[in-house]
Amino acid sequence: MSDKKYLVGVDFGTLSGRAIVVDAATGETLGTSVTEYRYGVMDRTLTAADGQSLPPEFALQNPDDYMEVLATAVPKAVEASGVDPADIVGIGLDATSATVFFTDKDGEPLCNKEEFKNNIHAYVKLWKHHGAQNQADRLVMVAEARREPWLGRYGGVLSSELLLPKALEVFETAPEVYEKTDVVCNLLDWLTWKMTGVLTGAAGDSGYKRMYVDGGYPSREYLEAVKPGFGDFFTEKMDYPVLPLGAKVGELTDDMAKLMGLKAGTAVASGNIDAHVQVAGVNAVRPGQLTAILGTSCCYVVNNEEYQDCPGVFGTVFGGAVDGLWGFEGGQTAVGDIFAWFTENCIPPEYHEEGKERGISIHQVLVEKAKEQEVGEHGLVALDWHNGNRSILADAHLSGLIMGQTLTTRAEETYRALLEATCFGARVIIENFEDHAVKIDEIVACGGLLKNTFYMQLLADITRRPISVSLEEQTGALGSAIFAAVAAGLYPDVRAAADAMSRVEEHAYVPNADRAAKYDGLYEIYKEMHDYFGRYAGTSPMHRLKDIKLKVFEVKRGYEG
Amino acid sequence: MSDKKYLVGVDFGTLSGRAIVVDAATGETLGTSVTEYRYGVMDRTLTAADGQSLPPEFALQNPDDYMEVLATAVPKAVEASGVDPADIVGIGLDATSATVFFTDKDGEPLCNKEEFKNNIHAYVKLWKHHGAQNQADRLVMVAEARREPWLGRYGGVLSSELLLPKALEVFETAPEVYEKTDVVCNLLDWLTWKMTGVLTGAAGDSGYKRMYVDGGYPSREYLEAVKPGFGDFFTEKMDYPVLPLGAKVGELTDDMAKLMGLKAGTAVASGNIDAHVQVAGVNAVRPGQLTAILGTSCCYVVNNEEYQDCPGVFGTVFGGAVDGLWGFEGGQTAVGDIFAWFTENCIPPEYHEEGKERGISIHQVLVEKAKEQEVGEHGLVALDWHNGNRSILADAHLSGLIMGQTLTTRAEETYRALLEATCFGARVIIENFEDHAVKIDEIVACGGLLKNTFYMQLLADITRRPISVSLEEQTGALGSAIFAAVAAGLYPDVRAAADAMSRVEEHAYVPNADRAAKYDGLYEIYKEMHDYFGRYAGTSPMHRLKDIKLKVFEVKRGYEG
Repeated sequence: MSDKKYLVGVDFGTLSGRAIVVDAATGETLGTSVTEYRYGVMDRTLTAADGQSLPPEFALQNPDDYMEVLATAVPKAVEASGVDPADIVGIGLDATSATVFFTDKDGEPLCNKEEFKNNIHAYVKLWKHHGAQNQADRLVMVAEARREPWLGRYGGVLSSELLLPKALEVFETAPEVYEKTDVVCNLLDWLTWKMTGVLTGAAGDSGYKRMYVDGGYPSREYLEAVKPGFGDFFTEKMDYPVLPLGAKVGELTDDMAKLMGLKAGTAVASGNIDAHVQVAGVNAVRPGQLTAILGTSCCYVVNNEEYQDCPGVFGTVFGGAVDGLWGFEGGQTAVGDIFAWFTENCIPPEYHEEGKERGISIHQVLVEKAKEQEVGEHGLVALDWHNGNRSILADAHLSGLIMGQTLTTRAEETYRALLEATCFGARVIIENFEDHAVKIDEIVACGGLLKNTFYMQLLADITRRPISVSLEEQTGALGSAIFAAVAAGLYPDVRAAADAMSRVEEHAYVPNADRAAKYDGLYEIYKEMHDYFGRYAGTSPMHRLKDIKLKVFEVKRGYEG
Repeated sequence: MSDKKYLVGVDFGTLSGRAIVVDAATGETLGTSVTEYRYGVMDRTLTAADGQSLPPEFALQNPDDYMEVLATAVPKAVEASGVDPADIVGIGLDATSATVFFTDKDGEPLCNKEEFKNNIHAYVKLWKHHGAQNQADRLVMVAEARREPWLGRYGGVLSSELLLPKALEVFETAPEVYEKTDVVCNLLDWLTWKMTGVLTGAAGDSGYKRMYVDGGYPSREYLEAVKPGFGDFFTEKMDYPVLPLGAKVGELTDDMAKLMGLKAGTAVASGNIDAHVQVAGVNAVRPGQLTAILGTSCCYVVNNEEYQDCPGVFGTVFGGAVDGLWGFEGGQTAVGDIFAWFTENCIPPEYHEEGKERGISIHQVLVEKAKEQEVGEHGLVALDWHNGNRSILADAHLSGLIMGQTLTTRAEETYRALLEATCFGARVIIENFEDHAVKIDEIVACGGLLKNTFYMQLLADITRRPISVSLEEQTGALGSAIFAAVAAGLYPDVRAAADAMSRVEEHAYVPNADRAAKYDGLYEIYKEMHDYFGRYAGTSPMHRLKDIKLKVFEVKRGYEG
């Protein structure tokens, strides 16, 4: 055993999990490995079982995918690092938040049981599962009527992505699953439970995604008012302690140590939301710094000394991202996901062929063609709501829109308009923060979209903010390793660990004044569309359209009446 | 020389020209041939000359393309028919309307002269050239102010596609071209002029597209009020007689007879608008019958005994389509063009591969996948304004829109939504006719879209009208042959010729009551979008977006200030 100490960080994304091994003193990454999920996102059919069609708005996952990451990515990263597992003193993890499990008392997900394997409600409800919009709407309605004190912390709205709407959805539409469920927890909790045998709740996810406010959940009376019989949900299914940020859950069991190629007894840190862990990963802990996690979806976290009611913001939690500050979270439900959808579904063959011939990605092909144009030349404005709108409208029933197409519109033009739309969406979030006295001076960015430098410059131009970028590719996993270092007792707190272990390039992108001014004109049109479709007095045409679609699926599935 | 007599009909479309040889007694087609245009539609670059970029809204053609049709398609059709050219007694033609030429006194287009070959305004301005919207707006403004009596015949609006806005565009932006122009005429006139040496105007195009009303053009005073110096336009550049429907222009010259493989002296009928000629081709001459010409764009013609002011209708001409009735015309600027744009620009490789493997068209691949869905299941509504809106908004600055896209939206779903949108657009036109006392009991359809039977059924379901269909594939060319028969003296009038020569399957499509009811819900959403974007009080976001785009091009071309 050497003098040096090492940590493992594991980051569970939407489509894959990645593990890194880092040096505890410097944060240097020594080994890394990625495991793609086999089942990934099940949103059309239940590929993990009988292949049945799923209703619209569904997004499920199979727990086997996560176990596979622990069994393959972790040992491969350790092997790649050349580090002796005996020198690894802590393991930390982060994962998509509000990704909800329904398990028995031993942590076995109900979907793994023969009885429930073809029941769509027994599966893991991924963060972007939007089947509980109706439940979210009613939870808000009753909370407003009862003036529930915690509602303001969630901007006065509850996303259908939160744990409670998803649990209520199962209670109401799949009582057979609900009845056999002993524990409802989320992916973070389930993973640390599996590793240590100790069931606990993660602080960030509890505060941001489960209405765990000032040390407690919403009351029995409130739940009963929403749905008779649902009152005991928290006491029956979620009766486990919530640990503070940076705490140690327990130690790796023999079985799991063997599976992961680590030593038994290694400290396991409480999990972090994949987004929030990046605040430590990029060391953006001062007020005015917006941590922007730019990936399949985008998450924005900013810390402020004062509490502010900030309508449409996803969650506001004291000490939720950094000890001693109020952490505000906003987000976009789909960003990289929209670009991926577009490249997979809307690009003609010759573009793909060009990419193959030149050995570049389809995104690079499109960017090269799109970047020559002047601002506004394509004549397009899009709404980036292909997966609904999280901030600031909190409405899963909104959908994507593109306006301005002509018979000469080319794929690269629509691609650019979609990129711009997501930047306009980010600007709406930033302006909303500032309108409510939460200042944003700078964006500190990390995530997969950093490699699209055209998008990054657009984001600077359109938001009119300088952007600093993380120099560590796996910022999430690094953040998890930082928390592991604290849990293992190597640093006194997360700030000290982050100061030592993270690296950032300051103001890598700055707004171009000319383009920024031109984008103001397009943003004005975006904003008008945003308000027309998103804040329509009465029933927005977009909502009516979605209602028609949902009705078709209800009839098809025999849910009618 | 046999006892039987034959006729040649030639139909000049947007992308190709087709010739047929028919039996004068039965209308039976004996030979047919198509020539694709080499240059086609020039809307991005001037491929016929120096390849310069074209401004947005431009759509030009090269006259050589039309001559090539006469030199190849006609002799090939004759050869295929096995008919002796000596037995061919007449030739008729139809073409896209308001496709405008600027020529010298001998009919040589200015773009054929060395001096002008790189001047974009010296080329043929195709019907769908939309560079003259500003001119059209001002022509209407002044006509309204002066209460010009003819304005009501055009529904109170003038499309930028008409001849006069296009001529004014050249007068204002390319005075060097205007000055050297001796004759402004359109494609129909130019073709019969070339064939016979006699310059005349075609009645339909003159009435519908050139404000030739009750025997005269708009006054010198009106033109001067629009633009000083433009007053003599009609007397200087359009001083040639307008012939009635079914008239003979003259006889084929020796040179042209040689080129076309026909005999010199063959009767040449005055040309018809490609759309209107179909009223004869499908024999839909009774009030209440809407002739629907469904192709790259769609044209709707209905005859009525009374004159009605019908706002937003493209033109109303007494005897314009059938002698003795008022002919009303409405249209959609792009229908098949939208589907073609979509399949060329928005479909991923695997769909194309499937089409190739199975030997079916990309449209068939998409229809097969789309048709399984229920009405509304895709959750999409589109606006079919990719080439502006002709009826009933007459606004070339409108553009396409699609609403409702999600991360699971597939190409076939968007394709279906585009098909539906064009049917909703047809329904708006039909409802507008009926709102103004022009009844529509039945649709009689012809054109290239008839082969898309899924689209045809959608059109019946969405418009709630039965559809009869032509049994002759080349209805346009057949209609032209019918006019040739009259010009050659074989029938006393067009009705008698049409009765003998055309064939139709009655009510080939009837509305399905269940689907029609469901489509009413989607139509309501379409209508709301239509009115929001098309009839916005103030400046529609769609217009502002287009203004930004046009501004970029102006700056690029140095037109600014």
